[in-house]
Amino acid sequence: MEFTVQQIAALLGGEIVGNENLTINKLEKIQDATSGCLAFLDNLKYEVHLYTTKASAVIVHKDFIPKEKIHTTLIKVSDPRASFSALLEEYYKFINFIKKGVEQPSYMASTSIMGSNEYRGAFSYIGENCIIGDNVKLYPHTYIGDNVTIGNNTILHSGVKIYAGCIIGNNCIIHSGVVIGSDGFGFAPLPDGSYKTVPQVGNVIIEDHVDIGANTVIDCATMGSTIIRQGVKLDNLIQIAHNVEIGKNTVIAAQTGVSGSTTIGEQCIIGGQVGFVGHITIANKTSIGAQAGIAKSVLKSGQSIAGTPAFDYKSNLKSMVVYKKLPELQAKIEDIEKKISITKP
Amino acid sequence: MEFTVQQIAALLGGEIVGNENLTINKLEKIQDATSGCLAFLDNLKYEVHLYTTKASAVIVHKDFIPKEKIHTTLIKVSDPRASFSALLEEYYKFINFIKKGVEQPSYMASTSIMGSNEYRGAFSYIGENCIIGDNVKLYPHTYIGDNVTIGNNTILHSGVKIYAGCIIGNNCIIHSGVVIGSDGFGFAPLPDGSYKTVPQVGNVIIEDHVDIGANTVIDCATMGSTIIRQGVKLDNLIQIAHNVEIGKNTVIAAQTGVSGSTTIGEQCIIGGQVGFVGHITIANKTSIGAQAGIAKSVLKSGQSIAGTPAFDYKSNLKSMVVYKKLPELQAKIEDIEKKISITKP
Amino acid sequence: MEFTVQQIAALLGGEIVGNENLTINKLEKIQDATSGCLAFLDNLKYEVHLYTTKASAVIVHKDFIPKEKIHTTLIKVSDPRASFSALLEEYYKFINFIKKGVEQPSYMASTSIMGSNEYRGAFSYIGENCIIGDNVKLYPHTYIGDNVTIGNNTILHSGVKIYAGCIIGNNCIIHSGVVIGSDGFGFAPLPDGSYKTVPQVGNVIIEDHVDIGANTVIDCATMGSTIIRQGVKLDNLIQIAHNVEIGKNTVIAAQTGVSGSTTIGEQCIIGGQVGFVGHITIANKTSIGAQAGIAKSVLKSGQSIAGTPAFDYKSNLKSMVVYKKLPELQAKIEDIEKKISITKP
Repeated sequence: MEFTVQQIAALLGGEIVGNENLTINKLEKIQDATSGCLAFLDNLKYEVHLYTTKASAVIVHKDFIPKEKIHTTLIKVSDPRASFSALLEEYYKFINFIKKGVEQPSYMASTSIMGSNEYRGAFSYIGENCIIGDNVKLYPHTYIGDNVTIGNNTILHSGVKIYAGCIIGNNCIIHSGVVIGSDGFGFAPLPDGSYKTVPQVGNVIIEDHVDIGANTVIDCATMGSTIIRQGVKLDNLIQIAHNVEIGKNTVIAAQTGVSGSTTIGEQCIIGGQVGFVGHITIANKTSIGAQAGIAKSVLKSGQSIAGTPAFDYKSNLKSMVVYKKLPELQAKIEDIEKKISITKP
Repeated sequence: MEFTVQQIAALLGGEIVGNENLTINKLEKIQDATSGCLAFLDNLKYEVHLYTTKASAVIVHKDFIPKEKIHTTLIKVSDPRASFSALLEEYYKFINFIKKGVEQPSYMASTSIMGSNEYRGAFSYIGENCIIGDNVKLYPHTYIGDNVTIGNNTILHSGVKIYAGCIIGNNCIIHSGVVIGSDGFGFAPLPDGSYKTVPQVGNVIIEDHVDIGANTVIDCATMGSTIIRQGVKLDNLIQIAHNVEIGKNTVIAAQTGVSGSTTIGEQCIIGGQVGFVGHITIANKTSIGAQAGIAKSVLKSGQSIAGTPAFDYKSNLKSMVVYKKLPELQAKIEDIEKKISITKP
Repeated sequence: MEFTVQQIAALLGGEIVGNENLTINKLEKIQDATSGCLAFLDNLKYEVHLYTTKASAVIVHKDFIPKEKIHTTLIKVSDPRASFSALLEEYYKFINFIKKGVEQPSYMASTSIMGSNEYRGAFSYIGENCIIGDNVKLYPHTYIGDNVTIGNNTILHSGVKIYAGCIIGNNCIIHSGVVIGSDGFGFAPLPDGSYKTVPQVGNVIIEDHVDIGANTVIDCATMGSTIIRQGVKLDNLIQIAHNVEIGKNTVIAAQTGVSGSTTIGEQCIIGGQVGFVGHITIANKTSIGAQAGIAKSVLKSGQSIAGTPAFDYKSNLKSMVVYKKLPELQAKIEDIEKKISITKP
């Protein structure tokens, strides 16, 4: 994962001022960069850092002329920020997809197939009758149960567990410790006070371009499917219960929990540590503040809500302000009561 | 995992109308069923689906006569819903216990023993001096530390981690990513502002018929045992701290946390994202609303509570209603104050 | 892990009254002890248990004389509580560091190095170019990505996942299911309503003497480092987002979440299920009550806060008390309004 300044300048169509043979192994902010780093300078309020940076090279605008002596190599381009972003993206793709081949020991049932350009890390496990696409990266300790389907260009980081029968789309990134397809939480009370486990025989469907954060859990449906639609982004430690559906391009922050059979619309933005009760429907483009408790359906799209139970975002802010003054309000009421009883005839 | 219509009809003692040789590989709702599915029709308000369903077969009442032409095979029984439920349970047992034998590579210390009808998935690990019962299924990547005991008919899904010395009962289902026996969170402050780790040398005891959801954590006791009693059902991502005891047949929803040395009674029903402080006692049959904060003991059994800090469930609902109107109440108080000062002589 | 009474007495410099050849395999409270246990008696209000305990041996004060007949062996020392604590610590170190050598199969890239007195459990994985110190214990199913550095005396319990490029200090204890270095949650909205994954190319730095509880997640920085300073203690199921910094000796209880780019000071004490928004700063020695929502920076050190949004701890307690009476207050206000309208001319 090392490049020379010359290779990077060639990629960006940039002009080098300084040592073209230096080695770059990291992308960093100009103020934090150390030797081996490549940084960029776009907003000139950060120019001061150029003269002290330890970065091996800095991307600057093609018309930029230093005012002081510099100790770093410059790569001159027409749009430094865009060039740096492009490099970041290339670099990110590179580190995500660099792994190739099959490390041993690993386990793959003979009834399963996997596409080209595969990575199967040591101790990865693929059960029976799985169909896995091209350019899929299964890091060490991933578990793929029987009859699982995975699309192309999907990455399962170390320790991801996919239960039997689940379907994962293309271009997904699933982080370590994620569990997909565990039993929904369903129990029927018996006369003696104990509970009988309700059979959970459905699966989970994850569509394309879904990112799932570390240690998040998505339960299988009781029957049918729990569905995560295209483009959904889930943060870490989220709970998605059985038969939930999350709409296209909805984003959910960490530690939020969605109870069984709830449907969340498209393009919602949901804060962290939010809780949803089961069997409700959330309209498209709903925004929900962190730690909210969602106790009933949101029927009109495009609303912002917060609080427990959640209501209009701005109204909740106002209630929160008054909440702090509650002891004061109580004192005022007592005071008024006294005055009134005095002024009464 | 395929059956013919004939096999299923024989199992249910049903009569076949149609093709008895069709293959069934899934149980599904009649409105969602596709080819290969078996569905059922009990409530006749769903009869309309019978004439359009793609299910290969549908279980119906023995006296049922279709009003229109049907394209599916019928299995006629005396109680369609009960027959379908029975099949679901058989199928669930089947898929849970189908795995048998020892996949390689797997690791089992020579000092440990395991009963009959075992499954040890590839990359499963069993430490020293473990005693594991009959019909136990250890999925890939399970970890069993030294001196662990596990009863009969218990399933550990992929990636479950059991620390040394813990005891797991019979007929438990433990889902992926569950950690049992990690250190309790105990630290003694030192004069320099740092903390010393308090030794955690106890264990966890899980009794019979306990279900534990994915990525839930149960810490070991500082000394003695953290105890999960018979029939307890824990959802996903729950935190159970050191020296906690959860009473028989108590059910806890996802993302709830129980702090150290708290005792929860029998047959409690606890919502999601609830937090309990440490060293308190919760009476039997307590119901607790989602996101509640439990700051003190609940001494009388059978109460319903909610809120933070939690109090009577219905009273909390009433306070929540007024909370939304707080800015309005504040305005009223200000208004009253003005009026009083005007009306004063 | 068995010792004789004689060995323990020798270690403590104690005098034995009774059978010196008994075997001890567990440390336990005097009231809970069974055969094979060692307990202690310090506070004489527990003396009654001495005469009924099933402990094989009990540590007592050197001047202690039993009032009744006892059935257990005594070890007499000058400070029973301190002796027992010392034994607990020795025992805890012993069980934590007893594992040695390399179990097979395990995986270690040839470009990586590991110090002396190592333990690499079966199915542990070490990627390329890692530098791992002395006396490090890697339990089964641990995953160490490429270019990771780990200091001396650090324990990674079964199933810990460390992404490429992260740095772990000396004397850390990291529990099962912990994920370190997963992608930060960063997505840029596109005109069509979908999101583009923002490349996350930074790492995580864990300094010395840090304890991390089971299934906690620490995301890598977008660029630069997410930093956990020396002596920090994190409980289970905590979420630490990208570019967060947690100051020296800060303690955080279970299920708390810290959003991106937030900086928490030194020696803070933070309760469970707390949520922090991103891009704020928390002063040193801040105490935060469980379930609080921290929506803005805390600038003055040494404050205690609670509530959502959090404010002064004691004031919040007072507001909580009034919250319960809100329906009553509302009724009073309505009552006052009626009276005023009546008394008006």
